[in-house]
Order: sequence, then structure tokens, then C-alpha cells
Amino acid sequence: MEEIGFLGLGIMGKAMSMNLLSHGFKVTVWNRTLSRCDELVEHGATIGETPAAVIKKCKYTIAMLSDPAAALSVVFDKDGVLEQIGTGKNYIDMSTVDAETSSKISEAITSKGGCFLEAPVSGSKKPAEDGQLVILAAGERALYDAALPVFDVLGKKSFFLGQVGNGAKMKLVVNMTMGSMMNAFSEGIVLADKSGLNPQTLLDVLDLGAIANPMFKMKGPSMIQGSYPPAFPLKHQQKDMRLALALGDENSVAMPVAAASNEAFKKARSMGLGDLDFSAVHETVASGKGSS
Amino acid sequence: MEEIGFLGLGIMGKAMSMNLLSHGFKVTVWNRTLSRCDELVEHGATIGETPAAVIKKCKYTIAMLSDPAAALSVVFDKDGVLEQIGTGKNYIDMSTVDAETSSKISEAITSKGGCFLEAPVSGSKKPAEDGQLVILAAGERALYDAALPVFDVLGKKSFFLGQVGNGAKMKLVVNMTMGSMMNAFSEGIVLADKSGLNPQTLLDVLDLGAIANPMFKMKGPSMIQGSYPPAFPLKHQQKDMRLALALGDENSVAMPVAAASNEAFKKARSMGLGDLDFSAVHETVASGKGSS
Amino acid sequence: MEEIGFLGLGIMGKAMSMNLLSHGFKVTVWNRTLSRCDELVEHGATIGETPAAVIKKCKYTIAMLSDPAAALSVVFDKDGVLEQIGTGKNYIDMSTVDAETSSKISEAITSKGGCFLEAPVSGSKKPAEDGQLVILAAGERALYDAALPVFDVLGKKSFFLGQVGNGAKMKLVVNMTMGSMMNAFSEGIVLADKSGLNPQTLLDVLDLGAIANPMFKMKGPSMIQGSYPPAFPLKHQQKDMRLALALGDENSVAMPVAAASNEAFKKARSMGLGDLDFSAVHETVASGKGSS
Amino acid sequence: MEEIGFLGLGIMGKAMSMNLLSHGFKVTVWNRTLSRCDELVEHGATIGETPAAVIKKCKYTIAMLSDPAAALSVVFDKDGVLEQIGTGKNYIDMSTVDAETSSKISEAITSKGGCFLEAPVSGSKKPAEDGQLVILAAGERALYDAALPVFDVLGKKSFFLGQVGNGAKMKLVVNMTMGSMMNAFSEGIVLADKSGLNPQTLLDVLDLGAIANPMFKMKGPSMIQGSYPPAFPLKHQQKDMRLALALGDENSVAMPVAAASNEAFKKARSMGLGDLDFSAVHETVASGKGSS
Repeated sequence: MEEIGFLGLGIMGKAMSMNLLSHGFKVTVWNRTLSRCDELVEHGATIGETPAAVIKKCKYTIAMLSDPAAALSVVFDKDGVLEQIGTGKNYIDMSTVDAETSSKISEAITSKGGCFLEAPVSGSKKPAEDGQLVILAAGERALYDAALPVFDVLGKKSFFLGQVGNGAKMKLVVNMTMGSMMNAFSEGIVLADKSGLNPQTLLDVLDLGAIANPMFKMKGPSMIQGSYPPAFPLKHQQKDMRLALALGDENSVAMPVAAASNEAFKKARSMGLGDLDFSAVHETVASGKGSS
Repeated sequence: MEEIGFLGLGIMGKAMSMNLLSHGFKVTVWNRTLSRCDELVEHGATIGETPAAVIKKCKYTIAMLSDPAAALSVVFDKDGVLEQIGTGKNYIDMSTVDAETSSKISEAITSKGGCFLEAPVSGSKKPAEDGQLVILAAGERALYDAALPVFDVLGKKSFFLGQVGNGAKMKLVVNMTMGSMMNAFSEGIVLADKSGLNPQTLLDVLDLGAIANPMFKMKGPSMIQGSYPPAFPLKHQQKDMRLALALGDENSVAMPVAAASNEAFKKARSMGLGDLDFSAVHETVASGKGSS
Repeated sequence: MEEIGFLGLGIMGKAMSMNLLSHGFKVTVWNRTLSRCDELVEHGATIGETPAAVIKKCKYTIAMLSDPAAALSVVFDKDGVLEQIGTGKNYIDMSTVDAETSSKISEAITSKGGCFLEAPVSGSKKPAEDGQLVILAAGERALYDAALPVFDVLGKKSFFLGQVGNGAKMKLVVNMTMGSMMNAFSEGIVLADKSGLNPQTLLDVLDLGAIANPMFKMKGPSMIQGSYPPAFPLKHQQKDMRLALALGDENSVAMPVAAASNEAFKKARSMGLGDLDFSAVHETVASGKGSS
Repeated sequence: MEEIGFLGLGIMGKAMSMNLLSHGFKVTVWNRTLSRCDELVEHGATIGETPAAVIKKCKYTIAMLSDPAAALSVVFDKDGVLEQIGTGKNYIDMSTVDAETSSKISEAITSKGGCFLEAPVSGSKKPAEDGQLVILAAGERALYDAALPVFDVLGKKSFFLGQVGNGAKMKLVVNMTMGSMMNAFSEGIVLADKSGLNPQTLLDVLDLGAIANPMFKMKGPSMIQGSYPPAFPLKHQQKDMRLALALGDENSVAMPVAAASNEAFKKARSMGLGDLDFSAVHETVASGKGSS
């Protein structure tokens, strides 16, 4: 893996390709707005004019696009990946997309003889810059093995999860668990407050015990203030809860707590909180005014 | 605080009084079964024949009894605390009891002129031995301040929470949050498993992310094995959920996720799992056999 | 049963004793405010000066008091039932009280040699006037059999449910079922409305199908208007849900739908709707303003 | 509307076309298995060889097919409705299909100049034979008005609900309400039983009160016996709950009680009860064995 292609230089993609450069990889970059490539070029990257051109040049190409539409476009549109993919070419999509999108891309690549790996990540800007992402890979095992030196640069840990789609599913399970925890936390904060306890003290007590975790520590203080700057928007969290419940439906798994949590997030959306951080579900518990 | 009385030498009380001795405090101990005092005496403790005798001898007395019945008995029965309590005497009950029991003891002590502090702890045998308990104190502020040198020996952190009853309430809020988290975790594990993902990999992924916490790390592996050795029995967890929901009822706080979690714990009880660890709620999610 | 005592002439008691008079029974009435007896006297009733006096005069006495406190007072206070109760005397309490209150009265009566029957009713003013109540009796079977001619006048149907307390429990089960149905109905109305369907048409469709019932028919139109004149106050409905859930807790019955309904009623209380009709739980579903 | 075409002679279609014949309409029938037309012919019907032939002959054609696949096939396949539909031709689809299927058919018909009405029904075999169906029509208003004489024969009541898709939505809202009621009922039955009350007596009490309804009366006795002969299969009920929740999701309506009910139906599916009647959700409440 001497020469690596890299498609997509958003916040994440830029940080990741910079990491590859600084670890001695040769990188050929492409971005829809080509001017975003300039900084990378200053650090030694080469520019590819189109996705197809990058694929043609490199044996291994990584994509980090913003959403399913962009991920599909880069592959299927004119001058796209499909035009040059084929035997001996390897494509690793690290974008966060749903299982269906991932499968569509996988089938197109492999039917032309290429190798495919989905590898969505857990972690945002800071971990991307620090090479501390968690990588959830699935698809072609041989490609995963070959990509390990790259993953070691980009993340603190990578997992191979089996067939294409499993990366997306793993993210759903994690986010569902996180969403229910956020509801549990919100109910605890409000119960403390309404029972005459200091919610900040609750945070301090929680942080010393068996359920202490970074999310409570990071979001608790602003939740108490009623402030929810969007890190992970509530409407996206609710969408993931819905998809996780649908996954449970397919597999006959009843999940009453996730279902109750999902309704709380829906309630929050109906209150106009969908664009705030998902911790704004706190408002659905706290919002009562009077009592009788 | 040179001379301290200590009532109750169960697993917790023994570890705590041993800590006090090793930090240079003079300790007078009493236990219903007096033979349990022997080991403490070897380490320098003096024996008090009755709770009343200990109160008479010491300005400060700590109690660490097994349950509300024991906590009440030590105070109100013949040769009990009440017979010698009075002005200038201080009583710190560190047992885990409900708010009502604590209030009853508080009233009896203070009506005789004594000072009272409830100080239930978070943490079990190991933290007790290591002086790493978290202490949730409430009642007489001056007594809390005076007791700080003792709390510094017994715990890694102590909180003063205001009026008597607040210690018990804080424990309920923490345990309610913990109970809902356990349900969220169980649903995640089962969803992963039934969706074709390796549950152990889910544990690994969770442990690297924003919701990583000691409870998931500690209990996850045995839950996957279907093993639930009782650290905190499920029926006690369900009781705490019920009491927390009742506290919410009093204060007009709707908590749909805690309510759903409570029903899952009740379901677990109906399946005969009440004496296992509270992580056995996992079985209520996992138990379905067929599908259609 | 020629001569019947009747304690309590509120809305219900007055209608019931009037029915007894018009069916040829001799009735001796007592009420805390004696002037309320006048109308009954015009129709042939005799006045008893105190509860004790009524018991002394009559072999059979019925009580219909407003709440547990009144039910207890009439029995235990000075000049109360207990002063004259004894072998050969029969006491039928038709007030709506909890199982505990009923048991307390039962024990006091029977320990003096009297016979006791609890017989709470389902139905309010109109059915009371029309002799169309539903009577849920429990306690002494022989007394139930002897009282059948009276129950035939007061109600359209009576049930004997076994030991004292079962009448109260049956009411809880019925009210719990009713409370969850009200939530199901509210969610249906709001879903229809927000999905672009006419909620009034939903009422019409429901009324023609397998789940048509008097409650939907009676309360639906005003719910659509956002009007909730209190027939059965929401806070009382929520109390009954809570007690039913507690009964389930005692008997290890998990009831996730009742639990979700109970939280909705609590939410309604937190919104200040506790004194309105229990159909006001509709507001908890409808209340969202925006969306995103 | 002298001459009416009728496509589909299953249990429902046969009863409906027989009703039309006995009320003096001329009917041209078609069925995939043509032999099922014989009995209708004996009562005066004419046979159409294909759906296209029926459309060609009749100004108004009604379809009553078994499922979405059949409804689509009759329209789009060779010799299907589309081949002859056009200006002046009217098509009324009374099959129960989802909103998407209905829209697809509607667009195909209207793009050729035909008129379309969806008109799913509430009610099964008996109401179909007795002309007592409830008809939920949506689409072309003028066609609804023209069809009223036919609907008066087939049903006891018809509704015009606006644009295509609203018929399907109304059925979802009704079935969702019904599904939550079934859960409320199941919980009531089990709570009565486990609390020492006779469940049959609960049925009797319910049947005399404000929530008495045909479903409780019809299904209660067999539920108590643990018998669930499939009238409306549980897996179909759960599918409708899921679709109703999705409809709520689209419109930002949180429905916590429906969500809890849906999870109970999913639990039932995981227990292998999906092919039984939806009242088998009773087993999810009743199934606990032990207790602690």
C-alpha cells in the first residue's frame, strides 16, 4: 500500500488524509470542490482530476463522503469510480451510510471484479485528527487485512465484522444503546431536581460510580443549563432509533425500553427540538409546568 | 474525634472500622454476635457490651447495619442507642435504609438532644476495604463537618445533601438511572446477537466510545454467557425502580423509560430471576425462541 | 329485610335510599348534615340521630360515604357503628374505599360479632337513580345472599367476589383497563388528525366496529374540541393506575402498556391537568407544536 | 349503474357480488379460477373472460382481491384492467392494500383517463353476506357519489375520506387503537387472575360498563382458555402497529402506548405466536411462571 487514493476532503477526510501523508503514505486526493485539495498538496499529496482518475492511478482508494447521496454519486455518476474499477482494484468506503446504500455500492464494485470494504467510523473531528477513530469494517476480509497498516494510522482500533452491512448495523446498535442511556440520564436529572436534590451533585455522584461515562460527563452540565448545542442532532438520533427498532422488528426482538426512548425523541421533535443536540430529549421530561 | 463508636461489623462495617483503626482512630465496636469483634480487638479496638454502652462512652458513633429492621432495632430496642443519646452525643447512620426509616431515627435522636446524620454509601466490599466509598450524607451540617476526617478515611468522596432523607433519595435516582442503562445494554446485546453481529465485539466497540462505563465492562461478558451471579439482586433493583417511580409520582415527573425498565424487571421476577444479579433482566429480552 | 338503615345521603346515597323507599322498604336514614334527611322523610323515611342509633334499630344497615375518611369516621367515632354492632347485626359498606380501609372496618365489625360486606359500585348519579348500578360485593357470603333483594332494587347486576378487598381490587382492574384504553383512543385521535384525516370521522368509523364502546362515544366529541369537563378526575384515574401497577408488582405481573399509560397520566398532571376529566390525557399526545 | 363489473370472487367478493345480484344489479364477474363464477352465473351473473374484457363491457368495475400482489396483477398484467381503461371508465378497488399500492394503481388508471376510487372495508365474511360492511372510500369524489347505490347494498355505512391513501390510513389508525386495547384487556385479565379474582367475572363486569365492546365480549372467553383461533393473525396486527407508528413518525406524533403495545406484539412473535389470533398477545403478559 504505497499509493493510496482518497475521495472526499470534508472535515473528516482532510484530517484522515493528512494523517496518511504524515505517516509516509503517497496520497492522491480528489474532492468535488478541487480547491480544498490545495492544503493537502502543500503537504505532498497529488491531485486526481476525477474519481475515475484516482481509481485508475491507485490500487487502493478510500472514500469519506458526507452522506449516502454523495457516496452513491461518486461511484455511479459520470467520471465515477465504476468507470475504472476492476480486477486488482480495491475500494474502501468509510462514509457513514445505511446498509442498503452500502450493499448497492458493494454489488456494483464486485460485479466489475473489484474488491470492496465498508468501514464506517465512530468518532468525529478530534479523533480523526488524532488518529483515534474506531473503525467498523465489513466486506472482503483480504482487503481488510491489507488495509490494516492504513487503519492503524487512522484509528486506535479497527474491527472486521463480516459481511457488508454489518458495519452499519453495529453503528445502529451502539446508537440505540446511547439513545436509551440519554433518556435514562435525562429522567435522573429531572427526578433529582424535582425531588429537591442538586442536579450538579447528581452528576458528581454518577461520575464516581459504576456507570460513569464520558457522555454523562460531557453533556450533563449543559443539559442542566437547558443548553443543547448540536453535536449529534436529535433528529438523526431519532432516525437511528427508528432504524434500530426496525432491525429488531425484522429479527423478532422486542425492545420496550428503546421503544419508549424513541417515542421520547419523537415527542422532542414535535416540540421543535429536532435540530438541537440529542440531549435535548431532556426537555421532554423537564417540560411540565404545574402539577395537581 | 479521637474516640469513635462503631455499631455493626458485617462485611462493610468490619472493613470500615478496620480502616479507622489503621488510620490511628480509637474505636469501640459492638456487634449483635459479639464474637465478630475479636479480629478488631486484635487490631486495637475496644468492645462495647451494648449499643447504649458505646453511645455512653463515645462522643461520635457510626452505625453500619444490614437493613432497616436492624437499623431501627439498634436504636429503639432495650439497651439501644436511645437510652444514652443526648446533648453532646452524635450518631451517624451509614446503613442503606429508606427515607422513612431514616426520618424516624432522626426524630428520635434529635428529640433527645442528640445530633444525627444519615450517610449511606455507594460501593460494596472492595471499595469499603480500600477506603474508596462514595458517601451521601444528609442531616446536621455541623456533624458532617466534624465527621469529615472520618469520611476522608472511609471514602474517596463525600457529599452533604441537605435535609434527612436526601441521601436515600440520591441513591434511588442513581439506581434508577443504572437500571434503565442495564435495560438499554441488554437490548443492545440481544439486537446485536439476533442481527448476526458478535455480541463480544459490541462490548469491545462500546468500551472504546462515549458511553464506555465500568458496569458494561464488568457485567457484559458474563451476560453474554447467560451468567448472572448476584452482586446486586434483581429484586432489590426492581424495588428501587419502584420507589424512584413513586418519588416521581409525588413530584409529578413522568419517566416513561424508567417505567418501561421497571416492567422489564417485573417480568424478570415473574420468570423466577429475582435472586440473580439485576443484569439478568437480559433474559427478558433474549428469551424468545421461535419467530413468525 | 323489612327495616333497613342507611348512612350517608350524598348524591348517590340519596338516590339509592329513595329507590328503596319506592320499592316498599322501610328505611331509617342518617346523614352528617341531618337536614339532608328531610326529603327522604317526606317520602316515608324515619330519621336516626346517630350511626349507632341506626345500627341499634335495624338488623341491616347500608353505608354510602364519600371517601375512606368518612367511611372510617362513621364506624369508629363517638356514636359510631361500633358502639351498637354485634351478633345479629349486619353492615354493608357500599362506599368506594381502598382494600386496606375496607379490611380495617371489616375486622372491627366482625370482632364484635357483626356481619360485614363491602359492596362498592360501578356507575354514578344516573344509574343510581335508575337502579342500574353494578355492585361488586365481597365479604360474608350469607349476608350477600340476604341482601340480594336490596341489590336487585339498587343495581342491574351484582357480583359476589369472595374475601373482603376483592371489590376494591376488581375496581382497580377495571379502571386500569379503562385508563389504557383512553390513552389508545387519544393516540388514535391525534394520529388521525395529524395525518390529514377528520377525527370526527374516526369516531364514526370506530362506533361502527368491533371496538365500539360507550366511553369513546360519550367522550370523543368533546376531546376533539379540547374540552374535558371532569366526570372522573384525571388525578384519581392516575391514582388508580398507580395502585393497579402496585397490585401487579405484588403479584409479579409486568404490564408495560399500563405503565406507559400511567406515565402519560403523570405527564398530564405535570401539565396542570389533574383536576380535569381523565380524557385530558389527550393533551399529552396532542400538545406538540412545531416539528423537525 | 345498471351494469357492474366485479373482479375477484374470494369469500368476500362472492358474498358482495351475490348481494348486488339479489338487489337487481346486472353483474359481470371474473375470477382467476373461472369455475368459482359458476354459482354466480346460476344467480344471473354474466362471465367476463379477462379483467380487460370486464372493463370493456362495464362502465363501473369493482375489484376485491386478496392482497396487494393480486391487486397489482389484475391491473398491470396482460389482459389486465389497464388495457381497456380510459375516459368514461370507472374502477373501484375495495381490496385491503397499503397506501403505496393504492397510489400506484390510482396513477396508472387516471393517467389513462379513467376514474379511480379506493374503498377498503371494515368487516369480514358475515358482514359481507349481510350487506353490513363499513366502507372507507377515498379518491374521486364524483365516482364515490355515483357508487353510493352500490355501497348502500354492500355496507351499512360508507365514508368518503378525501385523497387516495386516506382509506388505508384510516384502517391503520383503527387497527392501532384496537391493538393497544387488546393489550390493555390482556393486562387486565392477567392482573385479575394473579390477584385472586375470577377472570370470567371481570369479563362480566366489563360487559356491563362504559368500556363494554364487541371485541372484549367475543374474544375474552377464549383468551381465558388460552385459545387463540386466528381471525386476524397477530403478525398482521403487529405489521399494522408498525405502519401506524411509522405514520406517526412522519407526522411527529409520539405514541408511547402504541409503542409499548407494538413491542408486546413483537415479543409474541418471538414466542412463535405470529400465526395465531392477535389476542395471543395475552400470552406475553401471562407467561411468567415463578416469582421472587
